[in-house]
Amino acid sequence: MNTNRTGRLIGVGVGPGDPELVTLKALRALGEADVVAHFAKAGHPSHARAIVAAHLRAGTEELPLRYPVTTEIPKHEPAYRDAIRDFYDASAAAIARHLDAGRTVAVLSEGDPLFYGSYMHLHVRLASRYPTEVIAGVTGMSGCWSAVGTPIAQGDDVFTVLPATLAQDELERRLVEADAAVVMKVGRNLPKVRRALERTGRLTRAVYVERGTMAGEKAIPLADKPDDCAPYFAIVLVPGWKERS
Amino acid sequence: MNTNRTGRLIGVGVGPGDPELVTLKALRALGEADVVAHFAKAGHPSHARAIVAAHLRAGTEELPLRYPVTTEIPKHEPAYRDAIRDFYDASAAAIARHLDAGRTVAVLSEGDPLFYGSYMHLHVRLASRYPTEVIAGVTGMSGCWSAVGTPIAQGDDVFTVLPATLAQDELERRLVEADAAVVMKVGRNLPKVRRALERTGRLTRAVYVERGTMAGEKAIPLADKPDDCAPYFAIVLVPGWKERS
Repeated sequence: MNTNRTGRLIGVGVGPGDPELVTLKALRALGEADVVAHFAKAGHPSHARAIVAAHLRAGTEELPLRYPVTTEIPKHEPAYRDAIRDFYDASAAAIARHLDAGRTVAVLSEGDPLFYGSYMHLHVRLASRYPTEVIAGVTGMSGCWSAVGTPIAQGDDVFTVLPATLAQDELERRLVEADAAVVMKVGRNLPKVRRALERTGRLTRAVYVERGTMAGEKAIPLADKPDDCAPYFAIVLVPGWKERS
Repeated sequence: MNTNRTGRLIGVGVGPGDPELVTLKALRALGEADVVAHFAKAGHPSHARAIVAAHLRAGTEELPLRYPVTTEIPKHEPAYRDAIRDFYDASAAAIARHLDAGRTVAVLSEGDPLFYGSYMHLHVRLASRYPTEVIAGVTGMSGCWSAVGTPIAQGDDVFTVLPATLAQDELERRLVEADAAVVMKVGRNLPKVRRALERTGRLTRAVYVERGTMAGEKAIPLADKPDDCAPYFAIVLVPGWKERS
């Protein structure tokens, strides 16, 4: 690898949504980038791009990476996996062409790039071949518990992140084991999440948060939420912390 | 509560150590604060203060909060708990005096204020009585896995934060259950952590990180680390992520 001739890949965490929760390091990367790449659903603007829109330099080339439309394909089918893999392969190849031409490419990532982020799929395809830097960001979950002022974990607490896609008995088993937890990807799994929290005696301390740190933020004790409507990116906080000293 | 007459409390996350991993929002809070409070061990400078030292305005009043010296007292003894509780009570009272005088007080917190941070002990004592804002920060663990470029968790992974103070069998049981994990507060628990990782087949993918994102950062596959010397704040990453699509 000749670092004088190839470009540099930067995975840039842009935080949970509030444009003020961007780091100085992320802004520096945007200033240095020849190309800014960002993921978005087909037909939608990129959330990550919107967070840092005010800081994009005029003349910076943009590389939108549009997720394939897979709503017709069940997630467990090989055709789904193939479509996603092909998308990441093609995205990595598009970035590699810029890197081969000596350009610095910043890939925007909501939250933190290496914590449940799409950027990882590019990182594993490119980081061994090109000089790469990853800029940590404020995670979505930190944004949520800070927005609602809920201490989440302290001292010797065991803290667990659970995807709401787990089966109900699995959620229950893991909630019982954790001192503190966050349930992610809530969406249409909310009735199941609610039942699991109720059966494990944790519903009364659970807090539902939607659009944390963003315009339209909603937070409510889950026990008080009158319906089970939730967007995919809603999360439920299950704080473990009690005043202990 | 009269928000026109009392001051405002701001819990400010200053990130994992790299001064560039501070957010715009944290800097704004420093600009607005009449008083900047920071925790430190007796006889040591505050780490959190050092991270943002370049951004402190001349003339800002500082309120150092010095942890009591408790090295003589075993942690499980009531005398230890009492000493810590008295310290947080006195710290909250010192801050309350500024708030009562109408001053805005920013309390610096390494990493994220509500995630294993000392700030929480002040938050639970003051937030119900004064207008309070919490500014999320980049956590120490995000700083570490970004510094070493290690994707930590993806998709439907269950991710768990484990304190190294847990008993070895407890560590083993929880490591087996987690797809991805971070072990914190390693210090003199490293031999036990190493044995737990070995017995659960996770030693080969564990990465040891010391002073992540800071001067003197050290990172090494734990299996290659020739000794068991580790500072208290060292962490071990156990990435769950494999390229799956």
